[in-house]
Amino acid sequence: MPVDIATRVWNHKWRIDPIVRSLIDNDFYKLLMCQSVFHNKPDTQVTFSLINRTKSIRLADLIDEGELREQLDHIRSLSLARGESTFLRGNTFYGKRQMFTSDFMQWFENFRLPDYHLEKRDGQYELTFEGKWHEVMLWEIPALAVLMELRGRAVLNDMRKFELQVLYARAMTKLWEKIERLRPLEGLRLADFGTRRRHSYLWQDWCVQAMIEGLDRAFIGTSNCHIAMKRDIEAIGTNAHELPMVYSALAQSDEELAQAPYQVLADWHKEHEGNLRIILPDTYGTVGFLERAPDWLAGWTGIRIDSGDPATGAETAINWWKSRGEDPREKLVIFSDGLDVDKIIELYAQFLGRVKVSFGWGTLLTNDFRGLTEGDALAPFSLVCKAVSANGSPTVKLSDNPKKAMGPADEIARYKRVFGVGKQTVMEVVV
Amino acid sequence: MPVDIATRVWNHKWRIDPIVRSLIDNDFYKLLMCQSVFHNKPDTQVTFSLINRTKSIRLADLIDEGELREQLDHIRSLSLARGESTFLRGNTFYGKRQMFTSDFMQWFENFRLPDYHLEKRDGQYELTFEGKWHEVMLWEIPALAVLMELRGRAVLNDMRKFELQVLYARAMTKLWEKIERLRPLEGLRLADFGTRRRHSYLWQDWCVQAMIEGLDRAFIGTSNCHIAMKRDIEAIGTNAHELPMVYSALAQSDEELAQAPYQVLADWHKEHEGNLRIILPDTYGTVGFLERAPDWLAGWTGIRIDSGDPATGAETAINWWKSRGEDPREKLVIFSDGLDVDKIIELYAQFLGRVKVSFGWGTLLTNDFRGLTEGDALAPFSLVCKAVSANGSPTVKLSDNPKKAMGPADEIARYKRVFGVGKQTVMEVVV
Repeated sequence: MPVDIATRVWNHKWRIDPIVRSLIDNDFYKLLMCQSVFHNKPDTQVTFSLINRTKSIRLADLIDEGELREQLDHIRSLSLARGESTFLRGNTFYGKRQMFTSDFMQWFENFRLPDYHLEKRDGQYELTFEGKWHEVMLWEIPALAVLMELRGRAVLNDMRKFELQVLYARAMTKLWEKIERLRPLEGLRLADFGTRRRHSYLWQDWCVQAMIEGLDRAFIGTSNCHIAMKRDIEAIGTNAHELPMVYSALAQSDEELAQAPYQVLADWHKEHEGNLRIILPDTYGTVGFLERAPDWLAGWTGIRIDSGDPATGAETAINWWKSRGEDPREKLVIFSDGLDVDKIIELYAQFLGRVKVSFGWGTLLTNDFRGLTEGDALAPFSLVCKAVSANGSPTVKLSDNPKKAMGPADEIARYKRVFGVGKQTVMEVVV
Repeated sequence: MPVDIATRVWNHKWRIDPIVRSLIDNDFYKLLMCQSVFHNKPDTQVTFSLINRTKSIRLADLIDEGELREQLDHIRSLSLARGESTFLRGNTFYGKRQMFTSDFMQWFENFRLPDYHLEKRDGQYELTFEGKWHEVMLWEIPALAVLMELRGRAVLNDMRKFELQVLYARAMTKLWEKIERLRPLEGLRLADFGTRRRHSYLWQDWCVQAMIEGLDRAFIGTSNCHIAMKRDIEAIGTNAHELPMVYSALAQSDEELAQAPYQVLADWHKEHEGNLRIILPDTYGTVGFLERAPDWLAGWTGIRIDSGDPATGAETAINWWKSRGEDPREKLVIFSDGLDVDKIIELYAQFLGRVKVSFGWGTLLTNDFRGLTEGDALAPFSLVCKAVSANGSPTVKLSDNPKKAMGPADEIARYKRVFGVGKQTVMEVVV
């Protein structure tokens, strides 16, 4: 058959191969939180900053600064496409129509991502975003995805044609073997949470399609809004640490600080119901958070366990629900921290029938290239992009794992005191 | 990008998806032998017949007769394309220009494959080709390839999209792992001999390309004439058992029979030199064949070991060369029977430096789908297509492995007596 000359010429016209091609190639919960912030904290100035927790990977040596700038500049050129707007306005999310309000959509339709600040230091990139919270927060996911994919491209660049094909053949086989192990688990509910540290956009899209075919109804959807639209599946997600972190940084006193994480959920409560009412309790220690929680929070649908030992976290939640007179079997526990198939199977078996369980499978779904290249040059690593300050005050995260803690030392001490966090168990952060 | 509408419409126009699309999608040695027969035995009537040695695979239950007829009829519609003729006339084969003579090429350019006879019996297909030897002999390879691929298609037909993609991902990974194991073997020389029992044309073409990239100069070429042309690599092959089998069937006395295998090589000697002078000694027992061989045969370039224990066969050849005053280090041993990577590595190590070694890697190169589907439904099996009679007399093959023997019992007994074949070691035939 003849070459499609027009396609070939069209492909030549691209100056770069863009990594992020849509403003909604972003996690769904970012949009939910964005709307919440847009309504509740529209004037807050926040700084997001890239943090590479895996110092051994010297990103600034691997990734060309010019290429990085081109990708980031390309993202700044994106605006909401008509079809994307139609999807957000017309789709049913979590059983609800018009999830996104008219005023928010009107703002979003005219939105472009604000500028970034990029510098090299000690073999790493310092990449920060400063501005209104609801504007800069939308940088987190695309910034991470760009860094991850550019690092991958730097490695792939040295590989030959069949070597590349076999690399992807191996990655496909690896994922499919995981799917085959998950298939027998009756009643499993699992979503893709792997946008931020995916190997690439195309690979995430492949993973999602493989899960649709391989897991059928056990695969409940993806956190990636664009892929959810493209593949006609559910967009999944609720809220993240940045809400209590920023609310807490804005607190004017220890008393306000102690209440801040609950204020976040009070604001959320007004806006959402059902499966969107998911508690993320670990920002300043799960145990204390639940102990001091108001009763109305026990009525929420579930809890997301995102740090610490997941089984311990789930047991803590079960005991808490019982202590508040709730039936744990009616409650949803979402595991989302560093999951891979062994851990999923283990947690599934441990909590089957005791609570409703769901899994948000991230990096080791969409970027498990471990062991597939020499020197493991494509193995995922721990890259995050976090709100580090709000209206000039530093943010703090304690987490249930001190390895995931962040913030200035004196502020961490203060938060530990205010939230009554004692000794914590250290766990290695893989991804 | 837009769909290439013309491509799509063009694809719709095909009534079938043809398995064999070229008259030279055939093994190169078939063309060499065809020319030899065309010159030396142009009037011999021969019958070729399909034989499925793996009775447990009931081909007539798996493969629709209509589809089989369509594929065979399509092959009968093929004639030599202008570019193919140019390639055969203009290319250098084994360092020689004009390998194919003008009179042969003129005949071949006007050639179409003769009719076939197809019947179902006991869950198997009886497929025979009767006619002039040099005409029906060209059916062997395409007939086998069609049966193998239709059986594969019958299995693949029930698979879903990603399941299929992962199947091929696994097959690619499997081959690549073999290539990675072969890569360190310095001075390795290896050719693709896998046309007849390939998984499919496209898959064989993929395997060849992967070997080109992965093994570089250790991969010396392919037996497939069409793929050799398409990928611009060497076409590999010399001669096969059908020559001594038919010559022997034509013998009028035991004396003539005893001489027939040497007459084959005398005819070959006149036509070819260098690497094309390869002895295939096992048709009626290697040991006796070499003992009684005329001295001029010891001057030939090498020997192909195609049955029995390959190391024993090679040691026999080495001792024979020594006994005839030849230096084995100047001689070529080609292993071509049921090879896989373990055996290749073992034989390479055993004969390195003692003789020149080369490998003709067949079915387990181009059809190693073992272990990749449920019930191993795509595992290769032992299908052959052989000359079973010549001018009305049955053909006989003894081989160095009685499991590969064929012919009527009384004729086998006579041949054993004439060729002095005693007790033989039975070896399982895998493929």
